[in-house]
Amino acid sequence: MKHRIYVVGMGPGQENMMTQEAMQVLEASDVIIGYTVYLKLLGERFGCKELLSTPMRQERERCQMCFEKAREGKKVALICSGDAGIYGMASLMLEIGKLYDDCIIEVIPGITAASSGAAVLGAPLNHDFCVISLSDLLTPWERIKKRLIAAAEGDFAMAIYNPSSHKRADYLERACRILMEHGVEPERACGYVENIGRDDTKAVTLPMEELVHTPVNMFTTVFIGNSQTKIIDGKLVTPRGYHI
Amino acid sequence: MKHRIYVVGMGPGQENMMTQEAMQVLEASDVIIGYTVYLKLLGERFGCKELLSTPMRQERERCQMCFEKAREGKKVALICSGDAGIYGMASLMLEIGKLYDDCIIEVIPGITAASSGAAVLGAPLNHDFCVISLSDLLTPWERIKKRLIAAAEGDFAMAIYNPSSHKRADYLERACRILMEHGVEPERACGYVENIGRDDTKAVTLPMEELVHTPVNMFTTVFIGNSQTKIIDGKLVTPRGYHI
Repeated sequence: MKHRIYVVGMGPGQENMMTQEAMQVLEASDVIIGYTVYLKLLGERFGCKELLSTPMRQERERCQMCFEKAREGKKVALICSGDAGIYGMASLMLEIGKLYDDCIIEVIPGITAASSGAAVLGAPLNHDFCVISLSDLLTPWERIKKRLIAAAEGDFAMAIYNPSSHKRADYLERACRILMEHGVEPERACGYVENIGRDDTKAVTLPMEELVHTPVNMFTTVFIGNSQTKIIDGKLVTPRGYHI
Repeated sequence: MKHRIYVVGMGPGQENMMTQEAMQVLEASDVIIGYTVYLKLLGERFGCKELLSTPMRQERERCQMCFEKAREGKKVALICSGDAGIYGMASLMLEIGKLYDDCIIEVIPGITAASSGAAVLGAPLNHDFCVISLSDLLTPWERIKKRLIAAAEGDFAMAIYNPSSHKRADYLERACRILMEHGVEPERACGYVENIGRDDTKAVTLPMEELVHTPVNMFTTVFIGNSQTKIIDGKLVTPRGYHI
């Protein structure tokens, strides 16, 4: 019988925004592996289990640890923030899994920041949309730029992940300027959410011409409306197309 | 004090794929309003509550019913499948809410088919992606076509919602042909999932040249890989960019 390893999306952070399926999988596991910050979020409830981590950027080692622990006969869950399959560890686990044919990987979805952030802002993704990460750690900037241009030309609503970091303080500004060069008007309705799913969640709606000058931190998800998006009573709303 | 109305994403269908927050909101409500099929999914557990519906395509009437019930002093939850803010009722509620300034709308996110379907297939959305609906009920086909072209040109992974219906039996084929005319190769790794979150879930991976000839039903979500996507042991995997 093969060893089954679960890759679990924890959602934005608050325990009640996890699915019951995700909670059940964690409760049934012997070992929970993840980035330290996420393990701390679980903390008390799962203190009796083996909690393991590797430093940031050692994602491959974290995956290998999962397979090694599973081969010891342990029930293993690898946790990711948001959705395990959206900028999470699911694909790396499936790629490395080629080397461990006695293991099966099962992905348990979670609420990604596009969903949870959109809910805080109103309904900015209520029509066709793109999700784009501005992190160029693993993706060449030219590819990110190409996708921003395509998203603008396709008149998609957008959720922008990883809009900023210490080393990339001006990336959101760069992205906004690219969008504006390709048809996004200065008046375009936009918004951002900081610290989704935590006590100090902060949500702001603003036009593109202000967003371009707004510094955001690395715990922020940015939303760009499509050409139909409106701000209604402080909420960011992309209509589905009904006649009101 | 204002009346608070919750618009709740139920996820793909199985109760354990709802978030605990969504379940708590439904448990605390007096009236649950939604499309009949979703009310039936809730059925037994919430039989003691007032369950109301309107026929399909009477979405405006369903929203108005929420506001009227809230004004009677009832705690109201409007349920949507998947995520309330992704092709759900959140934006229509916020638009109609302009007429009811004694009411506040709160959106409770859920697992959308892009997340839940991706988890079944592997990790097809593990890099930048688009979500596009092929339904032209509320969106002109020319706009859908423009977005398909942009998604292909931006080399996005894609989740395609509403790929088919009785009246639109050939829409997925039309969409695939548009994608192939704009750079998606016949070998492109694709997949689809039928009946996500139900006992008879069916997941298939296949190349674009087969997908174009494959009839799918209206309970299907289709996934198109980006140029890096691979099929590994029957799973659809879009790499994040790590060197393995």
